[in-house]
Amino acid sequence: MRAVTYVKNNTVELRDKPVPEIGSDEVLIKVGGAGLCHSDITIIGMGDDNPLIGGTLGHEVAGTVDKIGADVAGWSAGDRAIVSLILACGQCRECLAGRDNQCEVVAPRDGLAPLSPGIGSPGGMADYIAVKARHLDPIGDLDPVHAAPLADAALTPMHAINSVRDRMSGDATVVTIGLGGLGHMALQILAATTGARIIALDTDQAKLKFAEAHGADLAIPSDGDAAARILAETGGRGADVVFDFVGVQPTVNLAIAVVRNGGAIRFVGLGGGSFPYTAGAGDGLPWGVNIERSYGGTRADMREVIALAEAGKIAVEVVRYDLDDALQAFDDLHNGKIAGRAVLVP
Amino acid sequence: MRAVTYVKNNTVELRDKPVPEIGSDEVLIKVGGAGLCHSDITIIGMGDDNPLIGGTLGHEVAGTVDKIGADVAGWSAGDRAIVSLILACGQCRECLAGRDNQCEVVAPRDGLAPLSPGIGSPGGMADYIAVKARHLDPIGDLDPVHAAPLADAALTPMHAINSVRDRMSGDATVVTIGLGGLGHMALQILAATTGARIIALDTDQAKLKFAEAHGADLAIPSDGDAAARILAETGGRGADVVFDFVGVQPTVNLAIAVVRNGGAIRFVGLGGGSFPYTAGAGDGLPWGVNIERSYGGTRADMREVIALAEAGKIAVEVVRYDLDDALQAFDDLHNGKIAGRAVLVP
Amino acid sequence: MRAVTYVKNNTVELRDKPVPEIGSDEVLIKVGGAGLCHSDITIIGMGDDNPLIGGTLGHEVAGTVDKIGADVAGWSAGDRAIVSLILACGQCRECLAGRDNQCEVVAPRDGLAPLSPGIGSPGGMADYIAVKARHLDPIGDLDPVHAAPLADAALTPMHAINSVRDRMSGDATVVTIGLGGLGHMALQILAATTGARIIALDTDQAKLKFAEAHGADLAIPSDGDAAARILAETGGRGADVVFDFVGVQPTVNLAIAVVRNGGAIRFVGLGGGSFPYTAGAGDGLPWGVNIERSYGGTRADMREVIALAEAGKIAVEVVRYDLDDALQAFDDLHNGKIAGRAVLVP
Amino acid sequence: MRAVTYVKNNTVELRDKPVPEIGSDEVLIKVGGAGLCHSDITIIGMGDDNPLIGGTLGHEVAGTVDKIGADVAGWSAGDRAIVSLILACGQCRECLAGRDNQCEVVAPRDGLAPLSPGIGSPGGMADYIAVKARHLDPIGDLDPVHAAPLADAALTPMHAINSVRDRMSGDATVVTIGLGGLGHMALQILAATTGARIIALDTDQAKLKFAEAHGADLAIPSDGDAAARILAETGGRGADVVFDFVGVQPTVNLAIAVVRNGGAIRFVGLGGGSFPYTAGAGDGLPWGVNIERSYGGTRADMREVIALAEAGKIAVEVVRYDLDDALQAFDDLHNGKIAGRAVLVP
Repeated sequence: MRAVTYVKNNTVELRDKPVPEIGSDEVLIKVGGAGLCHSDITIIGMGDDNPLIGGTLGHEVAGTVDKIGADVAGWSAGDRAIVSLILACGQCRECLAGRDNQCEVVAPRDGLAPLSPGIGSPGGMADYIAVKARHLDPIGDLDPVHAAPLADAALTPMHAINSVRDRMSGDATVVTIGLGGLGHMALQILAATTGARIIALDTDQAKLKFAEAHGADLAIPSDGDAAARILAETGGRGADVVFDFVGVQPTVNLAIAVVRNGGAIRFVGLGGGSFPYTAGAGDGLPWGVNIERSYGGTRADMREVIALAEAGKIAVEVVRYDLDDALQAFDDLHNGKIAGRAVLVP
Repeated sequence: MRAVTYVKNNTVELRDKPVPEIGSDEVLIKVGGAGLCHSDITIIGMGDDNPLIGGTLGHEVAGTVDKIGADVAGWSAGDRAIVSLILACGQCRECLAGRDNQCEVVAPRDGLAPLSPGIGSPGGMADYIAVKARHLDPIGDLDPVHAAPLADAALTPMHAINSVRDRMSGDATVVTIGLGGLGHMALQILAATTGARIIALDTDQAKLKFAEAHGADLAIPSDGDAAARILAETGGRGADVVFDFVGVQPTVNLAIAVVRNGGAIRFVGLGGGSFPYTAGAGDGLPWGVNIERSYGGTRADMREVIALAEAGKIAVEVVRYDLDDALQAFDDLHNGKIAGRAVLVP
Repeated sequence: MRAVTYVKNNTVELRDKPVPEIGSDEVLIKVGGAGLCHSDITIIGMGDDNPLIGGTLGHEVAGTVDKIGADVAGWSAGDRAIVSLILACGQCRECLAGRDNQCEVVAPRDGLAPLSPGIGSPGGMADYIAVKARHLDPIGDLDPVHAAPLADAALTPMHAINSVRDRMSGDATVVTIGLGGLGHMALQILAATTGARIIALDTDQAKLKFAEAHGADLAIPSDGDAAARILAETGGRGADVVFDFVGVQPTVNLAIAVVRNGGAIRFVGLGGGSFPYTAGAGDGLPWGVNIERSYGGTRADMREVIALAEAGKIAVEVVRYDLDDALQAFDDLHNGKIAGRAVLVP
Repeated sequence: MRAVTYVKNNTVELRDKPVPEIGSDEVLIKVGGAGLCHSDITIIGMGDDNPLIGGTLGHEVAGTVDKIGADVAGWSAGDRAIVSLILACGQCRECLAGRDNQCEVVAPRDGLAPLSPGIGSPGGMADYIAVKARHLDPIGDLDPVHAAPLADAALTPMHAINSVRDRMSGDATVVTIGLGGLGHMALQILAATTGARIIALDTDQAKLKFAEAHGADLAIPSDGDAAARILAETGGRGADVVFDFVGVQPTVNLAIAVVRNGGAIRFVGLGGGSFPYTAGAGDGLPWGVNIERSYGGTRADMREVIALAEAGKIAVEVVRYDLDDALQAFDDLHNGKIAGRAVLVP
């Protein structure tokens, strides 16, 4: 079968690999779509010598059930399914408590990232993928091409949003920075699931138009005037919650400049911007601000995302590429040419 | 009356001031005890030219009701009371929601600190203090000398602890760094109100003995071996929650080194240690760690603290100074000679 | 001034009363609108001998500031304001924690109902009402006629909804029974602030049409087939949350018949339906169902409601009556002729 | 092997059965202890014709690993383990969210009770029990005789307590009724994990002595004076939370008589007492009271219970019976002769 493979630094190739054998607790999925994420660009930039070299990429995967292991119940050939982002153990303290994105087994404290398809396990940018049955969720009648990006581009925002849901009351102001792959889903999730006022920011005018049409109460350029504008809009008090789906220096600075006393920031974008967090005053963060750097989401978050997509309350903006054009898709993403999410279709 | 007054940089004097007049919604409190806090040292080090110069210090204040304003109900002469740390407005969105330590009126986003007795309003290191009746809580039969430090030394840890209470389940590990004024109360609050395993750290052996006697499951030196020890104690996973009541560089580093994936850190001590918080990997913080720099507490927190003290479940270690010896008390605190909390007694 | 007065059992009269004097902490409000609630019908049916006889009715009140007491800050003549439903003390443990609808002073355990305008204190079905400044919230540019019902018809659902907000995830099913005064606001609040699937029920076909146009995912008759339909829609599992805004026997039975294991029911309508709650099995309620009989809401809930109305996310269906036609309005409500909320306009 | 078998109404026998074969995902546990619960008495009173006839009883089971299925990882012969109370599927929405005591597969809405050892699956009152590996938790060095009752007698109170944990602040009053098998564990869990004031009630003077020695702030007879006493102790406001571990009519009445406005009741005991729950006033329950009839607990609750037992913060009062004396144990429990928990030891 065809498989998009990380072969050396900043280089992927479409290689031929055998269709995987499945174990007794596994299912073979015929891939219907595999989303392409900025973190794939990050991964293939990790150099020429790391354990991911040679692996098949793709952590946003949906498709149809093709073969079923002997001990698997509850799945039939042809069922549509999405593959879990985090291949959690299901048995540790964190998994049992519904916090499987912090699984003690596959997300160790000193690990690079939790085990995922395409990150330590064969990914979904291929014709087939073998998955343990317990790492699948049903997607009903959703088209796998449109469903695949839910596994990360919708799940990760959902998790970040759920972590501050109790702050987003009907009189709260939420700022969300960045309307790319994750950000354009975050906006829709916020609009569908909260009554808070939503201020969406991006540097791209087309994305601001998208935001206005998809639930933003206000969509403004992410420029040098943005902080003053947001403070003015909130009577000088700042935003209750700020999501940063970019994470570069200007967006990190903006998040700090507009969060209110006792507000919250969720850093989701991995742009590497930073600031000196200080025990005591002096770093510009107001007192009591709650900060978290979010990673992925839980299976419960995944179920929510699927339900919202099935109800038509959220939808991924898909840019479709044939699997054979995978390299082109990588190039286009790298060059900022994708609006929404690129999906490889075998 | 006598009043401990901030007169210039690093200098306090016991001055004679008139007993305050009270407004119709105020009460005159005859001070029974006024706690001395590290932040008092910080305040008087703010230089020779700032709006606090000339003010009476003291934000931990308890005493007895002496005179009552015309419109005040519910208080009688001789009643024992404690003065609120934060002189909140009671009417803004935050106050109405029970988050009065973030009062929009007295704790503005760009302010130094919320309005408190001794910080923008006359403090309690004096024979008398005038207070709005709504900024008082009853303390029953508690001795004002022992009650006074509850207003900050117990309130502030209580608030930080309440912000992560749902993480401190019976199978959680909590690390608390620093057993000084706030830290020795935090330990007692943790022991009295959670079933989590408590690991207490300090550099002072006597304080570790105190911790062992007051509810720590393990009390260990806060030295270069501490991080490895804590990781070993938690099977390499790290602590669910870390409280830093010191906030200097070594304790900030320690907090980061031992918090688990998806755990939480609460920075309460204002020692000024810092680290580069990064949007993305690279700063040593595991994924999903939740951080907050706590300030003060709410009136609901205050009610809890008083109830625990009345029940004998927590108690301040008091070092008593006559009000006339206030300067000696400042010196002793500055020189690290106080175990527990110094209280000035008029 | 004119004042709708409860004079004897089931009888109101429009009486002439003096315009109230205001105290130093009070504001005189020129009433712009006063909502008429089913509980007003209940109140005037309490007989000929009770402390409410002679009182002015009206607990949903909005208007403009007319006169301001000497000690009041923050209000100017002409400002639009809404009067709090519950005239809470602001100082007890419950008020300080933001749970003022359970105020220990005005909502005692053995009381009939918390103190409200029109229920123990002069109400707003009059030309003027005197109110303590701290019992007012600003309503910006909202028309007082449309804002008045927010004080109960929107506040009370908001409080009930907030009490189960964490259960209404994107994959949850919520059933709401009754689309009258409170119910038609509940539906809009649910649609505006959650992503859950909403099934709305009523016996009135016109109200089901309204529901379909205002956010219900499904609107079905509240008849003998309803329970089976809801179970079918949820794969036999039942609804995560059921709101009953009617409270008569058939709706109480329906709520029990469709709630899932570990789900929640909120009884808000006061129709007096009942069931035998049993310690142990046998009453038809699945294990782990959480039940609460909601009353009113908090000031924090009120702020949310106002913000949602200001943003146009919720709106009361108003049936306007001149204050002089108050008796007609009572008759029409009693006879089930009001769609939405009747508002008396002085 | 020996197996305590439900043979007909109110009759158990010690029968000889084959040692169970294990599947590839199962473990054979050599039973170390099996707790005897009031619900076992209830089960064997269900008549002569039901699917449980012929089954081995025992849902509180701990022991040592004897044999291990081919696909099982993480367990070695000799490891000590406790068997889950609820044999949840691990894959449904509720299980994935950490609410496995409401598992959609094994705890259907219309089922009698969730699937448990001894309730629909062979129980642990036998020499051996076969269990899926994922239904085991490690118990470290705990003696299986003392650990076995944790599976229900500690788990079930822990779950009920966790459902109201945010109400049990340091200034709250908690009433717990009944100090039997579950109740004596509930008291210890409350004392170990909350700072609230605990009022414990029972009709047995010896159990009140136990309560005084194990963390009750006040232990009083559960008699006709109890309600007045509790109201007096709370200034007429009533208790924030009431746990009823008995559930007979007098305890149900007492719970209602002492809960405060907006307080909570958790009915855990299955005594069958009842009251007419009314939509509207009239049943004696104050406004806003939150009620839930608890069943079992989650795996996360189980982990907490085990950790508290390992730390010595809670301990079951065990009355030990040889497995051969099982019938005597049933008689003694039926006759109210057990203080704490009877455990059968093979």
